[in-house]
Amino acid sequence: MRIFTLPEAPNSTLGKIEKNLSENLMGFLKENIVAVEKPLSEIEKDFQAYQIPAAPSFVSDYAEQMMQTLIAHSVHTSAPSFIGHMTSALPYFVLPLSKMMVGLNQNLVKIETSKAFTPLERQVLGMMHHMVYGQNEPFYESWMHSASHSLGAFCSGGTVANITALWIARNRLLKPDGDFKGVAQSGLMRALRHYGYDDLAILVSTRGHYSLGKAADLLGIGRDNIVSVPCAADNKVDVAKMREAAERLEAQNIKVMAIVGVAGTTETGNIDPLKELADLAEQLGCHFHVDAAWGGASLLSNKYRHLLAGIERADSVTIDAHKQMYVPMGAGMVLFKDPEFANAIKHHAEYILRKGSKDLGSQTLEGSRPGMAMLVHACLQVIGRDGYEILINNSLEKARYFGELIAAQDDFQLASRPELCLLTYRYVPAKVQSQLNEAIAANDAARVSEINTLLDGLTKFIQKRQREQGKSFVSRTRIIPANNLEQTSVVFRVVLANPLTSKEILQQVLDEQREIAKLDTRFLPKLLAL
Amino acid sequence: MRIFTLPEAPNSTLGKIEKNLSENLMGFLKENIVAVEKPLSEIEKDFQAYQIPAAPSFVSDYAEQMMQTLIAHSVHTSAPSFIGHMTSALPYFVLPLSKMMVGLNQNLVKIETSKAFTPLERQVLGMMHHMVYGQNEPFYESWMHSASHSLGAFCSGGTVANITALWIARNRLLKPDGDFKGVAQSGLMRALRHYGYDDLAILVSTRGHYSLGKAADLLGIGRDNIVSVPCAADNKVDVAKMREAAERLEAQNIKVMAIVGVAGTTETGNIDPLKELADLAEQLGCHFHVDAAWGGASLLSNKYRHLLAGIERADSVTIDAHKQMYVPMGAGMVLFKDPEFANAIKHHAEYILRKGSKDLGSQTLEGSRPGMAMLVHACLQVIGRDGYEILINNSLEKARYFGELIAAQDDFQLASRPELCLLTYRYVPAKVQSQLNEAIAANDAARVSEINTLLDGLTKFIQKRQREQGKSFVSRTRIIPANNLEQTSVVFRVVLANPLTSKEILQQVLDEQREIAKLDTRFLPKLLAL
Repeated sequence: MRIFTLPEAPNSTLGKIEKNLSENLMGFLKENIVAVEKPLSEIEKDFQAYQIPAAPSFVSDYAEQMMQTLIAHSVHTSAPSFIGHMTSALPYFVLPLSKMMVGLNQNLVKIETSKAFTPLERQVLGMMHHMVYGQNEPFYESWMHSASHSLGAFCSGGTVANITALWIARNRLLKPDGDFKGVAQSGLMRALRHYGYDDLAILVSTRGHYSLGKAADLLGIGRDNIVSVPCAADNKVDVAKMREAAERLEAQNIKVMAIVGVAGTTETGNIDPLKELADLAEQLGCHFHVDAAWGGASLLSNKYRHLLAGIERADSVTIDAHKQMYVPMGAGMVLFKDPEFANAIKHHAEYILRKGSKDLGSQTLEGSRPGMAMLVHACLQVIGRDGYEILINNSLEKARYFGELIAAQDDFQLASRPELCLLTYRYVPAKVQSQLNEAIAANDAARVSEINTLLDGLTKFIQKRQREQGKSFVSRTRIIPANNLEQTSVVFRVVLANPLTSKEILQQVLDEQREIAKLDTRFLPKLLAL
Repeated sequence: MRIFTLPEAPNSTLGKIEKNLSENLMGFLKENIVAVEKPLSEIEKDFQAYQIPAAPSFVSDYAEQMMQTLIAHSVHTSAPSFIGHMTSALPYFVLPLSKMMVGLNQNLVKIETSKAFTPLERQVLGMMHHMVYGQNEPFYESWMHSASHSLGAFCSGGTVANITALWIARNRLLKPDGDFKGVAQSGLMRALRHYGYDDLAILVSTRGHYSLGKAADLLGIGRDNIVSVPCAADNKVDVAKMREAAERLEAQNIKVMAIVGVAGTTETGNIDPLKELADLAEQLGCHFHVDAAWGGASLLSNKYRHLLAGIERADSVTIDAHKQMYVPMGAGMVLFKDPEFANAIKHHAEYILRKGSKDLGSQTLEGSRPGMAMLVHACLQVIGRDGYEILINNSLEKARYFGELIAAQDDFQLASRPELCLLTYRYVPAKVQSQLNEAIAANDAARVSEINTLLDGLTKFIQKRQREQGKSFVSRTRIIPANNLEQTSVVFRVVLANPLTSKEILQQVLDEQREIAKLDTRFLPKLLAL
């Protein structure tokens, strides 16, 4: 039982490791995560044992072993030159607070196991709600701490947030009606039969997050009923096309259950025309959800929040605090315009979540949950709106700078301009660029495709090699770049949320890519020989 | 930007708080969480602001304020006398490891943001799978790290685990078939039409966890299609009645999609007859899920794992490591007997989860997730099977001791005997006990109901007052106690997972309850006047 009563010994192996971590987090990560990538198959060799060991290990032995096998080969997500992720460096104070959160080991499912953490979580949801919807004081006084209302739901991340929003949309559409007890009680088949719909559909742009497909599967709607609407060249959904799709569906007696606007697409960072989508949702009489998992943090900037104008008309909004709000992993939220909405998924049990209780668990998809709201609360207070204003504005402006830097190179090509702090581009040797432009001007799809295929190979080669070298990291995806004859191409993808990423680092990333390109023997020679 | 580069200052307010926490966790919690409960409405006063503050706060000011408003009024979940929760004291080493986990900020959704954490998580799932299913070495060699297989899925908790299991069961039942693309793609209505079922049903005992209802709602099956089967007097499902229910449903062309066995019910801690349920599932040709969210940890005891015999025949098993495995909140798992099962919910995207990748996110309900697997891994190695053997056995034997202690008092009544380390009971003055027994012997339902109603009021009074006094905490629920003419009653509920809970504390809990009972002026006088 000693492990339950022992103090942490500062001079133990684990104590020393922790001390290094606390005194210099960035230094610790830089020092202990090896730069050059070890192949996954090699790493896996250290994780082959499939039996729980019989004998206990000493904590110090275990800690040392993990430093070698796990920490050394984890990903330095907070490195200023690792600009391919949505994770960033973290403010130092979240570390001791996390430790406190773990030590307190609250369970937010109910008051009995969380007490003051419940009003704290409700307050965070209230503040986030106010950031999006800006209702007046009486609104928050009435609903923020009301037992039978909720301004949102905390969850592990954006996926669960999106699922929760669409779950509510489905249950509100197919609600109890006369003798019919509603979809929650009677199931989807009876609900569709009762309401006389042949099917349901969800409309979203082709840039919608994959979690929407997951939600459609889970909710029994079916992935095929996520209707993907094409984007205009700017990666924003074409609202006219969405309206056409909706009319076509409704003519087939397929009810549009929800339309989803994306505020910061995962792949290009663009924001759908939210006002027009709100108008369309109103016309269709359907739920309007905005997936702002990543982009929502930009509402914290007074200078740039206009980019998301219209979001306040959404019925529900997803925001991840663990993305650009600088909170550690595991802090998603969905906010509800109407404090009554969550009652569509309300549930009770005997021993907890009794009717009339303020237990948060009665309106969340998850059950037991940790007190992550505390870390969001801390960031909101310690960074404050003024602090976020600087952080968000710097990110957006850095992305614009990087976009211009790329456009100014004769051997790089910007694939999507940054609207927030995300952009995509690729390496295209100058000579190839002019050939590609000629082929596009001549509307020669076959030639464009030939060049694109080779460029795709080259982009993948550069991205992989750069990652393996461990100095910097950009991610990659496939999109339809502007002026590419509607052809899909592989591109580098960069997210500039880390406040420690400097202009020098951005220049180095391009320089490194240019150098790596020269090493390719498969695609580059063919491209230069075109 | 300084908050991203500053070291943690050991002499700052937050540094000092952390030091106290590290040096003496139990002391820190005892000292800083106030004992006497403040009403929630009072606590809420500190969480009224609904606007994100404009100006940043000093970390030290914020930390001090939170100590007063949040920490002081949180719940001391690890107190040895707080025996109403499933949370326990934590081994000290999980605290520094948690801090490391947060500092590393990995995202387990994909290799690119988690690297070695991915094989680590797969190893943990492998070890847990082996604990349940005990397959041979070639099995784990083949599947543990296979890109297109998975032995389980990590998630935030048992609710998501249960949802995942039933999601898989639904998708496997309504799989693609000829021209039909399957429920995942085409939705539930078309799937039921294709397979010619009028509806689906899930069978579980009346003691099943409320998350199953949530799953039925979410999956479009409907809460009414969770068919609750009565338990025998021992709170284990009556398998004969379940068979009858299944036959009745199938005669109505309602397909039994899954039967769920409970291994450690939330309210009484009992284990369903898993072997018989496995036989029934085989006969019905349906999925057999075991919800061992809480009880599954008992498999770590060689002495008592026989209590869960038959679990190895389940298609899927839910286990929460944050319950009796002494891992902090947020570590749920679902294990799959067949490494192919998870392919029924597999999904891909362009920029991550590409086909053939080992990204864990392609087979999980959640998207972005933290590296909680690391803490489970640490506990499995540092505590080891030998350590867990002692912890689990002590818990079970302490519960048996407490059950006997309660039975030996003439003014307490055991409502359910502990099978694992959970039991229920109530305070019934000796005189009332004999009157109740007489009424039961006479089969006088009205009289039994009259007594029960008064006892319910008394039980609630005692439980609430004891919680408010802050010395100890038991929870309460409503069940049908043995020998109570099938009438539902309110009972105290106790979980004895905390290794620091002593026999003296158990005696004190009863003494305190007896004292509190005397203070009741509403129900006790009426009971004594009967």
